[in-house]
Amino acid sequence: MALIVQKYGGSSVADPERIKKVAKRIVATKRRGGKVVVVVSALGDTTDRLIELAHQIASEPAEREMDVLISTGEQVSVALLAMAIHSLGARAISFTGPQVGIVTDSSHTKARILRINTNRIREELRKGKIVIVAGFQGVDINENITTLGRGGSDLTAVALAAALKANCCEIYTDVAGVYTADPRIVPRARKLSNISYDEMLELASAGAKVLHNRSVEFAKRFDIPIRVRSSFSRGEGTMVTKEHKFMEDVVVRGVTLNTDEAKVSLRGVPDKPGVAAKIFKTVADENVNIDMIIQNIGKKGKSDISFTVMKRDLKRTLAIAKKISETMGAERVDFDENIARISIVGVGMRTHSGIAARMFGALASKKINIEMISTSEIKISCIVDKKYGQKAVRVIHTKFGLGKG
Amino acid sequence: MALIVQKYGGSSVADPERIKKVAKRIVATKRRGGKVVVVVSALGDTTDRLIELAHQIASEPAEREMDVLISTGEQVSVALLAMAIHSLGARAISFTGPQVGIVTDSSHTKARILRINTNRIREELRKGKIVIVAGFQGVDINENITTLGRGGSDLTAVALAAALKANCCEIYTDVAGVYTADPRIVPRARKLSNISYDEMLELASAGAKVLHNRSVEFAKRFDIPIRVRSSFSRGEGTMVTKEHKFMEDVVVRGVTLNTDEAKVSLRGVPDKPGVAAKIFKTVADENVNIDMIIQNIGKKGKSDISFTVMKRDLKRTLAIAKKISETMGAERVDFDENIARISIVGVGMRTHSGIAARMFGALASKKINIEMISTSEIKISCIVDKKYGQKAVRVIHTKFGLGKG
Repeated sequence: MALIVQKYGGSSVADPERIKKVAKRIVATKRRGGKVVVVVSALGDTTDRLIELAHQIASEPAEREMDVLISTGEQVSVALLAMAIHSLGARAISFTGPQVGIVTDSSHTKARILRINTNRIREELRKGKIVIVAGFQGVDINENITTLGRGGSDLTAVALAAALKANCCEIYTDVAGVYTADPRIVPRARKLSNISYDEMLELASAGAKVLHNRSVEFAKRFDIPIRVRSSFSRGEGTMVTKEHKFMEDVVVRGVTLNTDEAKVSLRGVPDKPGVAAKIFKTVADENVNIDMIIQNIGKKGKSDISFTVMKRDLKRTLAIAKKISETMGAERVDFDENIARISIVGVGMRTHSGIAARMFGALASKKINIEMISTSEIKISCIVDKKYGQKAVRVIHTKFGLGKG
Repeated sequence: MALIVQKYGGSSVADPERIKKVAKRIVATKRRGGKVVVVVSALGDTTDRLIELAHQIASEPAEREMDVLISTGEQVSVALLAMAIHSLGARAISFTGPQVGIVTDSSHTKARILRINTNRIREELRKGKIVIVAGFQGVDINENITTLGRGGSDLTAVALAAALKANCCEIYTDVAGVYTADPRIVPRARKLSNISYDEMLELASAGAKVLHNRSVEFAKRFDIPIRVRSSFSRGEGTMVTKEHKFMEDVVVRGVTLNTDEAKVSLRGVPDKPGVAAKIFKTVADENVNIDMIIQNIGKKGKSDISFTVMKRDLKRTLAIAKKISETMGAERVDFDENIARISIVGVGMRTHSGIAARMFGALASKKINIEMISTSEIKISCIVDKKYGQKAVRVIHTKFGLGKG
């Protein structure tokens, strides 16, 4: 008998009316046959409101207590959803992460799932019940409540699907699936009917916000097909699966825009071996993720080294960069927050050539200057001036014919 | 080393400012030496809001899911209180009922505590931490979340005090202690510095709403002294303890008014042996608690039988009474919601005589008619017309000199 895991995000259960609608969809799924496990997030902005409450009490609340606090959001959701399903005459039972045995490490607010004890879920499924599990939360081996951090509920859903050997994990969200580009920027953007895990990972890290990378990595590792679809409409959504041969026929699957980064430059760095390595090791030691790196050899044996970091890490990074700059005898540290990263992604890049040239050509045709470039096997990213970001996405989308089915 | 359990009600932690104040009080207690365990209720009207939310989803929410839902209220409180204590530089750790091993039966929304596993609490106390436990909740042997019903957080506190062999259980509330009468009715009412468990039980069942009977019964069984005091002021409150010889010197400890009851009368009941017993057995079988009972033998071998029930049970009781009335050939069923019960309580009644006569005399002096009377070893109750209720309390309070220290 088929087993399906469905996950509904906070906007899907923001109020009683939406919860009732979600309940209808779940009961309809159940009545088509098979077993159904549902993972649900906290109602609407509950988590933010709880965090705000904590900050009214303490400037730096202990992370263990933060987890005790914010895990209540999903607990409210599972109870209400179970009640809504009962009202439709179906059988359902709710569980918190700790109850269901989602065991994590003890890294509060960003815990990693270690194992899932599926006995209780299987028992209730056998009885014919719909099992509803609180997303985002677990318990460490000392029975402390933990939460999984950003994208945690998606991760709960995928991990449960893996542990239960589910046939599919459906992620219900407020968009209809994965698009060739953000439809708010490119009105002709097209929903993709399928995409590979690797493409999804690159799109996510390049700025697409549909699925969190941790969930996709987990799904890839255990080969769990994910269907991303809207909880507000009936569309089939986008299937995220392992790579199939036919996927290579399409060179570029999507184009993304990311304006969450800033560029940091160390100017006039004495050009000695190991200098770049030292800079990046020091920054990495402070838990700042550096992404694109570029080094220009200048005159008089001095070079400029630039890299990008998330804007939220900029202040910290600048402090580190200034310290390094002094010890190395560099001339100065610059930064630029007005940058945009444009990326194209597609497994077809492996077998097709000349993709980068076509991308650069598209940008050149609109006189958009490329400040930095980085490439991976299935992705090419360019940093441009932020004010050209949306224009760049549109010209590339057209150039590669992404709007055509 | 002394161990104290403190319990703070919902009004004491209604908002961040009050939570910080409560934290200060807890830390001050801790710094005076000894071990401190704190039990806390949900913030302000949180529980009511969660129940309201459930009723927007389902007209009759399943009780198991109701417990999952409403137990989140106390979980929020313990986390926030721990954060507030940390901010004051003290060490604290929060636990939910399930985490701390408060094992109950499976009667959702009104579970009974079966046992408490104190290992984790003792371990954290040994480390010097203040231990904060969510009131009102537990877990059954199948790891389902349960709640304890009305007065549940008080019960958690007393049960923890018993399990931990605490020296005292302090119940912080919005009144300064137990009074000789409700100060809103009798401005000269005086706070009692001590009272026996039995007196407290009789006062509570007679209408005083300071402590719930279940907690007092529990405290009596395990001989845990309870101190009732205000979280908004510094007073010593009232000690509730086992009976001491000196308590008998005072004949009457308090006078209460209860307007939550209604009177039901079966008129013209054929006067045969066993008739009253049959009526009360039938009503009791429907889980309605009957209290005062009075039977008047009338003319022609017929009698009138009256009893009181809680107003919330009135509708159900009338339906039962009408059915019985028909099968017995009684003339009719009447009811009266405009009644008030006035009670006086004191262990001194056991050794003093003439108390009832003095109470009746006080009522007669104000021309207040007594409709029903019931007595126990340490309590006398009279039913009067509701409109004379407050006047009756005042005249009795004066008659027994309760305002004098």
